[in-house]
Amino acid sequence: MKEFVVHQLLQHALITHPDQVIVSDGKRFTYREFYSRVLRIANSMKMLGIKKGSVVGVLDVNTNRFLEMHYACSMLGTILHTINFRLAPEQMLYSMIHAVDKWIFVSDIFLQAAKPLFAKFPNWVVMSDNPEQPLPEAKVIYQYEDLIKSGTEKELPEANEIQETDVFSIFYTTGTTGNPKGIQYKHRTILMGSLQLFHHLALHKYGARICNRDVLMPLIPFFHIHAWGMAFFPIYLGVKLVLPGAADPAAQQVLIEKEKVSFLNMVPTQLQMLLEQKNFGHLKVLTGGSPFPSGIAKKANSANVNFSLIYGGSDQLGTAISVIPETVEPDTEEALKWLRAGMRPFPMVEIAIKDKEGNNVPHDGKTLGIIFVRSPWLPKGYYKEPEITKQHFIDGWFRTGDIGYFHTNHSIYVADREGDAIKSGGEWIPTGILETILSENLAIQQVAVIPKNDKNWGQRPLGIVKTKLEVTERVLKDFLLSKVNDGKLAKFWIPDQFIFVDEIPLTSAGKLNKKALRDKYSDETSITNFDTQRKQL
Amino acid sequence: MKEFVVHQLLQHALITHPDQVIVSDGKRFTYREFYSRVLRIANSMKMLGIKKGSVVGVLDVNTNRFLEMHYACSMLGTILHTINFRLAPEQMLYSMIHAVDKWIFVSDIFLQAAKPLFAKFPNWVVMSDNPEQPLPEAKVIYQYEDLIKSGTEKELPEANEIQETDVFSIFYTTGTTGNPKGIQYKHRTILMGSLQLFHHLALHKYGARICNRDVLMPLIPFFHIHAWGMAFFPIYLGVKLVLPGAADPAAQQVLIEKEKVSFLNMVPTQLQMLLEQKNFGHLKVLTGGSPFPSGIAKKANSANVNFSLIYGGSDQLGTAISVIPETVEPDTEEALKWLRAGMRPFPMVEIAIKDKEGNNVPHDGKTLGIIFVRSPWLPKGYYKEPEITKQHFIDGWFRTGDIGYFHTNHSIYVADREGDAIKSGGEWIPTGILETILSENLAIQQVAVIPKNDKNWGQRPLGIVKTKLEVTERVLKDFLLSKVNDGKLAKFWIPDQFIFVDEIPLTSAGKLNKKALRDKYSDETSITNFDTQRKQL
Repeated sequence: MKEFVVHQLLQHALITHPDQVIVSDGKRFTYREFYSRVLRIANSMKMLGIKKGSVVGVLDVNTNRFLEMHYACSMLGTILHTINFRLAPEQMLYSMIHAVDKWIFVSDIFLQAAKPLFAKFPNWVVMSDNPEQPLPEAKVIYQYEDLIKSGTEKELPEANEIQETDVFSIFYTTGTTGNPKGIQYKHRTILMGSLQLFHHLALHKYGARICNRDVLMPLIPFFHIHAWGMAFFPIYLGVKLVLPGAADPAAQQVLIEKEKVSFLNMVPTQLQMLLEQKNFGHLKVLTGGSPFPSGIAKKANSANVNFSLIYGGSDQLGTAISVIPETVEPDTEEALKWLRAGMRPFPMVEIAIKDKEGNNVPHDGKTLGIIFVRSPWLPKGYYKEPEITKQHFIDGWFRTGDIGYFHTNHSIYVADREGDAIKSGGEWIPTGILETILSENLAIQQVAVIPKNDKNWGQRPLGIVKTKLEVTERVLKDFLLSKVNDGKLAKFWIPDQFIFVDEIPLTSAGKLNKKALRDKYSDETSITNFDTQRKQL
Repeated sequence: MKEFVVHQLLQHALITHPDQVIVSDGKRFTYREFYSRVLRIANSMKMLGIKKGSVVGVLDVNTNRFLEMHYACSMLGTILHTINFRLAPEQMLYSMIHAVDKWIFVSDIFLQAAKPLFAKFPNWVVMSDNPEQPLPEAKVIYQYEDLIKSGTEKELPEANEIQETDVFSIFYTTGTTGNPKGIQYKHRTILMGSLQLFHHLALHKYGARICNRDVLMPLIPFFHIHAWGMAFFPIYLGVKLVLPGAADPAAQQVLIEKEKVSFLNMVPTQLQMLLEQKNFGHLKVLTGGSPFPSGIAKKANSANVNFSLIYGGSDQLGTAISVIPETVEPDTEEALKWLRAGMRPFPMVEIAIKDKEGNNVPHDGKTLGIIFVRSPWLPKGYYKEPEITKQHFIDGWFRTGDIGYFHTNHSIYVADREGDAIKSGGEWIPTGILETILSENLAIQQVAVIPKNDKNWGQRPLGIVKTKLEVTERVLKDFLLSKVNDGKLAKFWIPDQFIFVDEIPLTSAGKLNKKALRDKYSDETSITNFDTQRKQL
């Protein structure tokens, strides 16, 4: 039996779509040219002694070279370490040592940042369009494009020996506490987990319904689950792929228009930025991250942006997408609500939500619990971390650490991260729901709700707000109070205080960085800058 | 890791879509009720001693009971023999003995036909809605509905032990020569092979683009690759399924209207019959079988029936679907041509077309050769037939026995069965192409072209025609001659003779039964009834 291995996608696409195009940094490569480059770099890597089981780190944004490395590593059986460049420098170093990176392929845009690493690892390849690029000092150092030139174009016999259960890649998640944790993806795991997402986007009539006539652009970086599977799917289907490199939102906008991009993936904050640009015609957007502000959903809807949400993460892969239930009319308020808050697990994915006692919660649209996931593509655990693995991977299930509930129609709502939820007087206050409701207030551009230590209640909610119109704390409290009357939240959820800030920090995945906010605000007994930062109406 | 096993689809659908409906013979079952019946029949089967590795034959049209047997067998690890009721009686008996059927579940509509079998097998279950149904004599005999009543509803612990590489089912193909050949499908093989088809129907914008709001009805019988995967896909996606039982075309038409069926599968002859019915609104139809007459394609198109074609078979599963190339505008003559004649292999499926010397043919849109297939879901060979297996399964490839060529855009055209093609003076005449062109003639309702033995050329083509308007042989020859001038065929392909008949016999799969035609007409030196049967203009 032929097996599900990554480079087979490219070998197939080469036959069915040899003239399809990959656009990267103003350069254009047909699949045929791309395949030739993959063979050349793979053969050069082989000459350098890189082989099956070697680990190669790649430090790059979304470029054709990074994508080439996916397929070259697959053919060699080499493990691709997609280095998470949003980690703090010492965490990034930790991940490279922990994964035992033998070679590091670094883009010139990261050369400056990587400078301290050059003394620590012997073998380097610099990825650059500029042959005159001055190279840092390292024991062994090559230019990627030189390796492409010197590499032969012959097929690699070892490519036929790769098994679907061989490890394809490794990635390190942001550790909010402690060191980053590594997760290995097998060929079969990452392919099935990735493709399932796109199959179901296509099978569901409403939302970001992808098809063979779309032009795709990933704004999610390759290090994050291979750009949520975008390293594989375009080649699998044979569609045009536009890689944005280091393009900023304005440059992305130009690319979208010029290359007729029709399908993108991005985090909600990127979608928010996109929606602030000028008109861009019809787009399909896959996004994710909970909670998803209803304000962004409405804005997307009126801007003719069809979106779907994915639920998942690097330690569980994609496990659910938002779906308008079959009984709900599209183009209604209710449909929009489901698209941003009703996650239906993929077939073969089991989701359990368990209360404090470990019992399954009822499907009642309100009872919160911890979300557990089991699926055919669940990774086995954290690399070389048996103790941490035991805490999160239990009897074949992954304990996500997310808090949510089952809708009565059996889809799920992801309300919060366990660490982000507030325990007030023994009761959970889901900050995600609060943030979603607050985001509907026209004065608010971004909002985070975090716990503030409280001697009476243990914790109480504290709102951190970036405004776009002037507003007072009183107005926001009254706004929430009106929603209490609508049955949308409990009165005791209303934050005691709001802090008005100019910027809310984001994590490496583009989510609200609640840890940073908690570090700054949770323990203060009095918020000294509260009055000065509050914008007066 | 959880594995890809059939009954997991149902367990998942039970959670996400418990109230979705299966309609069968006027009865309606929610997925919850269906699941309960599956557990009951499975527990009763267990009580009867049916267990992992037992083989159970089912002789039924497409009903809820046959579908229940799919999931009950999956839970028990029992091998489901989907008995091919279109085999000749002695071939059917052969298949049941060869597969070692321990129990036979027979629908009452086949009771009469199965009568001679009752003495030959000891254990029988009769599937009927009528509890008063007089049962034939057999050593052990039960009523299916009694087993449902007496069965408990508890989960089967053995269901958790089934592996994806366990055998799920066995099926026997029509043997045009010799005995029928058995093919075993593993859980993983049949699931991946089946679901791939629907994923790609959804991913391609034009054709029979299936989605979660469709209502599905399989006209392909379950014995034929589990109704081309329809035993699995509706439950996988959680959509409404309408099972037509023994409904004739008129009754199918009523069902389509009443149940708002929007997606069907069927062979071209069934599509032709459907198109002769009155108006039925927009439908999506998956069909297959080569060649696909352009006359039917045009008629479907103007009747607002979106169709796609599948290429495959029970010994290779589905390996390609027809796709309008991304460069071709939909709703054009050219688009329609691709939808009926341009088969694009699924990702991970390799197709090779080899000439007499075993060399790959060029992708030039004309050079004919034998089609070979390799894929992750290719079966291993024919059950207990090592010699025949060796002839067809060669170095991991399946020699399909189909003749075709590569279009210049790398999709394939399937022109003919090797046994059906005509060798005239050492050159192949693809009958499929001739039949397709002839089907465009308004006078022709059905046409088959078969070889007639010829002392000068070895073979020469002979046309067998069922007309709907009166026409002469001369007119048909002139019609083909005009197509020679258009470059559509070679002059020597034009049949020397045409025979006009009232009916063209069909195979068990609903295709033209060329074997029967060859037996009747190929060896005759003079066609005695030619003049009498020819309809005069």
